[in-house]
Amino acid sequence: MAGMLLLSSILKSFIKRPTELTVREGFLTVTLSWVILSLFGSIPFMVSGFIPSFTDAFFETMSGFTTTGASILTDIEALPKSLLLWRDMTQWLGGMGVIALAVAIFPYLGVGGFQLFKAEVPGPIKDRISPRISETARILWMVYLVFTIAQTILLMIGGLSFFESLCTTFGTLATGGFSPRNSSIAAYSSPYIHYIVTLFMFIAGVNFSLHYWALKGKLGRYFKNSEFRFFGMIICVALGLIMVARWMGGEIFSEGLFRDSLFQTVSIVTTTGFVTQDYEQWPFVTHIILLALMFIGGCTSSTGGGIKNVRVLVLLKEMGSELKKLFHPHGIFPVRVGDKPVPENVVSNVVVFIALYMLIFLFGVMAMAGLGLDIDTSIGAVAATLGNVGPGIGTVGPVDNYSHIPILGKWILSFLMMTGRLEIFTVLVIFTRHFWD
Amino acid sequence: MAGMLLLSSILKSFIKRPTELTVREGFLTVTLSWVILSLFGSIPFMVSGFIPSFTDAFFETMSGFTTTGASILTDIEALPKSLLLWRDMTQWLGGMGVIALAVAIFPYLGVGGFQLFKAEVPGPIKDRISPRISETARILWMVYLVFTIAQTILLMIGGLSFFESLCTTFGTLATGGFSPRNSSIAAYSSPYIHYIVTLFMFIAGVNFSLHYWALKGKLGRYFKNSEFRFFGMIICVALGLIMVARWMGGEIFSEGLFRDSLFQTVSIVTTTGFVTQDYEQWPFVTHIILLALMFIGGCTSSTGGGIKNVRVLVLLKEMGSELKKLFHPHGIFPVRVGDKPVPENVVSNVVVFIALYMLIFLFGVMAMAGLGLDIDTSIGAVAATLGNVGPGIGTVGPVDNYSHIPILGKWILSFLMMTGRLEIFTVLVIFTRHFWD
Repeated sequence: MAGMLLLSSILKSFIKRPTELTVREGFLTVTLSWVILSLFGSIPFMVSGFIPSFTDAFFETMSGFTTTGASILTDIEALPKSLLLWRDMTQWLGGMGVIALAVAIFPYLGVGGFQLFKAEVPGPIKDRISPRISETARILWMVYLVFTIAQTILLMIGGLSFFESLCTTFGTLATGGFSPRNSSIAAYSSPYIHYIVTLFMFIAGVNFSLHYWALKGKLGRYFKNSEFRFFGMIICVALGLIMVARWMGGEIFSEGLFRDSLFQTVSIVTTTGFVTQDYEQWPFVTHIILLALMFIGGCTSSTGGGIKNVRVLVLLKEMGSELKKLFHPHGIFPVRVGDKPVPENVVSNVVVFIALYMLIFLFGVMAMAGLGLDIDTSIGAVAATLGNVGPGIGTVGPVDNYSHIPILGKWILSFLMMTGRLEIFTVLVIFTRHFWD
Repeated sequence: MAGMLLLSSILKSFIKRPTELTVREGFLTVTLSWVILSLFGSIPFMVSGFIPSFTDAFFETMSGFTTTGASILTDIEALPKSLLLWRDMTQWLGGMGVIALAVAIFPYLGVGGFQLFKAEVPGPIKDRISPRISETARILWMVYLVFTIAQTILLMIGGLSFFESLCTTFGTLATGGFSPRNSSIAAYSSPYIHYIVTLFMFIAGVNFSLHYWALKGKLGRYFKNSEFRFFGMIICVALGLIMVARWMGGEIFSEGLFRDSLFQTVSIVTTTGFVTQDYEQWPFVTHIILLALMFIGGCTSSTGGGIKNVRVLVLLKEMGSELKKLFHPHGIFPVRVGDKPVPENVVSNVVVFIALYMLIFLFGVMAMAGLGLDIDTSIGAVAATLGNVGPGIGTVGPVDNYSHIPILGKWILSFLMMTGRLEIFTVLVIFTRHFWD
């Protein structure tokens, strides 16, 4: 940390501060921030000797700062507490960064329909353009802090040590999924702990502006929000399907079955990646459901990853609108989210985002398959890193880790984590020819 | 056939002929045509006792009329010649139907950007609205017939019997893939036959309007057509990647390696599904490439299935346009195919088409997985039926068949074949609430 402070002050004194960022510089700054953070953040892992390989240390740190939770560690508990804390802190800090991006920077950069979310959920501060940006972010960070304190206390009440409560909370609210235990949340047998973690994973997957209004007493805003309702519906449907599939697979209907199904559904859809049970033992159809949840992801302005619920909602409504146009060729069917029609340019921006997401997924799977991984693992690893989930399926499943992935594969997956976290456009735009014109 | 003629004349005398079809009736008529054709077309298989199960017979016939080529037969050569001919004729007739849909009916119904293709490639007859519709279709059917005769003769020169030449030709030009032999084209050892089939598969995957102009001496139209150029590029890139992957996988670079790679690339991207070699033995990364080709499919107004090249091209250009907009927020970047900008409503129609295609693919995979199939087979079977390819990967690979799929699965796959063949919208629109208002 001292080194970074020194470096930044040296750089500051040498380089003239620009008065205003251009949009291009914005994209470059955001992307480089994550790269540089991960480079410096991996130093503790390397110098301590616990993750000697640079590739592994960078992967683990990028996984932290992008709140992914994919790990190359085969024995997490062998790490000293200091490193475990740092590992979970990268996630918590990453979560703060993600909130700042979502409420302040992405809407300004016009990334993937964030303009829309701005319109639907009024933030704490009306006008988001700087210098109000920092004010908005600060208020939502307070919300983040309130939940951090609340969850830590609730976990300690459940019998966890302060250290484990704090680490678990860091992993939860960032929808990260790093746990100080090898077997993740399954290490704690208490149902109370499972339900508390489930609750806070859910909270972390919801728009933090809504939480802000809820903390101010306006709870009704949750249910007025169409993304929140859609998110709730997705969880209920997936939970129902998973329980039925497990029951038809021969398991007995019990509280435990409900609890584990709920836990994994919320953990995957919020892209946290905590585990209470090896879902790869469940009937195969549940893997496809969980895979679909990895794609959908959390809500906007949450710390969750994936495509995001409101985008999926816009896509579905746009599909309905196109179908209606087929037999009313001259009708106009604007896509509505909430009460307001979504501008056409935002709709196309959102649909293109989803298409790009799928395309990157496909190329990722091709690359991983090309490196010799099997199909389950290729699909699981790419979906879980691009969506910032963490554990996937195949040999990177809930009871496995990413240590056996070839070096080039780890770099590709690190890149996917960053691309997913920074809403695709931010990273891709840098690789276009026009960006450097 | 006599029964159908009788039935139709009875119906004709009882039901008053409507003067004009509404758009809704158009969708319903097209969809029901394929259902009814497959119902009646399956009668010969059932009454002959060679495919006693109604599900299997319907699956095989739907696979024929949709020019898919997925088969439930474990021993094709056990069938009498009459049934083999009928089986391949369903494909050939299906191919004629597909051409009629593409040039005449879909542009009129406004399905998935067919308006666009109309604009880019002028058909033989300028104005497509009836009664010129039948005229356009008739001219392109003549082209189809010319190629049928040419390929049959060329195969006979290669030493095949008239019967085998005709059946193979029917399967080729329809991009169907039904072969009278158990081992498909691999049954013929002559490289000449392989190259001839490759050539005609390629022809069948190209816009038939272009062929019409070529037969009239205007060969230059091929290279002026952006979809044709894109299609050619896709084939070259895929072929290159597959050859490199096989070479790196330890195979020796030879004419045979080139020939089989080319054959399978063209066979899959045109969604024919003929086989000269078990590509499941190739390195795993080639399966992903072939899977991607199944999605891309042929050109518009060809008999090929899949998403279609021009749609993929529009999507890629729209992605580029959205990326440019990010740092030129006030710029206007219309998507251009050829020289002309594509109207925005056509672009969104195309992008939604692709999204719907992927969504149906996902639900299909979930359904097949729910029926107990493994992940390779679920993905392969759904991609290969929705794209009208035929053989997939997993247990429905090039040397397998669909006989072991559960009954419900066969009905789902039959539905997918029809949905893919009728450009998704045509079938889906019938299931919307508004359609029946």
